[in-house]
Amino acid sequence: MERAPGDGGALTEKILDAAREQFMTFGLRRSTVDDVAKRAGVSRVTVYRRVGNKDELVQRVLLREYRQFVAEVDAAVAGLPTMEERMVEGFAAVLRLIRGHPLIGGLMRLEPETMLPYLTVESGPSFLAMRGYLAGHLRRARRVTGEEGGEQESGDPVAVAELMVRITVSFLLNPVSCFELDDDEKARAFARRYLTPLLNR
Amino acid sequence: MERAPGDGGALTEKILDAAREQFMTFGLRRSTVDDVAKRAGVSRVTVYRRVGNKDELVQRVLLREYRQFVAEVDAAVAGLPTMEERMVEGFAAVLRLIRGHPLIGGLMRLEPETMLPYLTVESGPSFLAMRGYLAGHLRRARRVTGEEGGEQESGDPVAVAELMVRITVSFLLNPVSCFELDDDEKARAFARRYLTPLLNR
Repeated sequence: MERAPGDGGALTEKILDAAREQFMTFGLRRSTVDDVAKRAGVSRVTVYRRVGNKDELVQRVLLREYRQFVAEVDAAVAGLPTMEERMVEGFAAVLRLIRGHPLIGGLMRLEPETMLPYLTVESGPSFLAMRGYLAGHLRRARRVTGEEGGEQESGDPVAVAELMVRITVSFLLNPVSCFELDDDEKARAFARRYLTPLLNR
Repeated sequence: MERAPGDGGALTEKILDAAREQFMTFGLRRSTVDDVAKRAGVSRVTVYRRVGNKDELVQRVLLREYRQFVAEVDAAVAGLPTMEERMVEGFAAVLRLIRGHPLIGGLMRLEPETMLPYLTVESGPSFLAMRGYLAGHLRRARRVTGEEGGEQESGDPVAVAELMVRITVSFLLNPVSCFELDDDEKARAFARRYLTPLLNR
C-alpha cells in the first residue's frame, strides 16, 4: 500500500500501533475495526481508508512486526565475521526475540487456535519470506568468501535456509524438548552443534 | 484401560471403529458421544462405560491410530541392514502414511483449528512417544553395531530422534517447501542428504 505524502504515513502508523495494542490485549477474534478506530482516536471510515478491513489490519500489523523482527536479528549478527558465527548468533537472537515478543507471545497465550493456522498450514507467505531472508544471507556469505563451488558440494542456500526455518519454527510450535534453549548460551551451543553443519549440506 | 475378558475387547474395538468413522466424516467438533453410540449400535451408557466421554474417545482413537502407524513404519524398515537405510525408508514411509491417512488427512481438511493444537502446543505426549520410539531404534542400532563411543562423538539418541521428529512433523504443519517429497524416491533422497548425517551429530 502506498503511503500518502506528509502526515499520511504517521496516521497509518498510529492506526497500526492502536491495532497492535488492541490485538495484544484482547486477541484477534474479539477485536473489531471499531475497537481499533476508538483506540486510535479516528473514525471507522479512516481505518478502512488508510488500512482496510480487519483482515488487512491483522496482515499489516504482522508484516510490520516481521520487518522489525528481521531488523533486530540483522543488528544482532551484523559485524560477525563468519557465516557460522552469524548463524549461531542469529538463532539465539530469534529465540530470544520470539520469547520476549509481546504480540506473538500474547496471542499464542490468548488464542492459540487463531494463531496456529498463521504459523502452520497458512504460513505460506511468511514462511517464504523467512526462508528468502536467510537464503539471501547464505548467498551473500558465499559470494564474499568466494566458496561458490558446485551446489551439490556447498549446499543449496534455499534448501539449507528452509531446514533452518523449519527447525526454528518447530521450537515455537512444539515447546516440549530435550534441548535446553532457555538462555542465549544454550541456544548458541545448539546452533553450533546441529545447525552450522547444515551449511555444508 | 483394562480389557474385559471374552467379547469385551471386541466391543471396545467396535466403539472405537465407529468413533473413527464418525470423526473422519464429520470432524471432532460436531461429533457427540450419541453419534458414536448410534453408529456402533450400542447405547450411550455403553460408550461411557467402555471408553468414556468424548475427550477420552478422541484420545483412544488417536492412540490406536498411532500404534497402528508405528507398526506399519516398523514393518517398512524391518530387515534393512543399517540404521541409515532404516532411517531413509522410515522417513519415506512416515510421509507416505501421513499423506494417505484418512483420519489425519480428513481432520486436517475438515477442521484444522481443532487438529493443530494436538499437533503443536498440546502435542507433548505424542511428541514424546514419537521421540521415544525413534530413540529406541537408534539405541538398539548402536548396541548391535557396537559403535557406542562417547555420547559427544556418536550423538545423543534422544537429541537426534527429537530433531528428526521435528523436521518430519514440520512437513505436515508447513506444507510449502522447496523440497519435493511427493513420492518415495524423493523422500528417500531428502532423508539421505539431510537426515542421516544427524546420526553422527
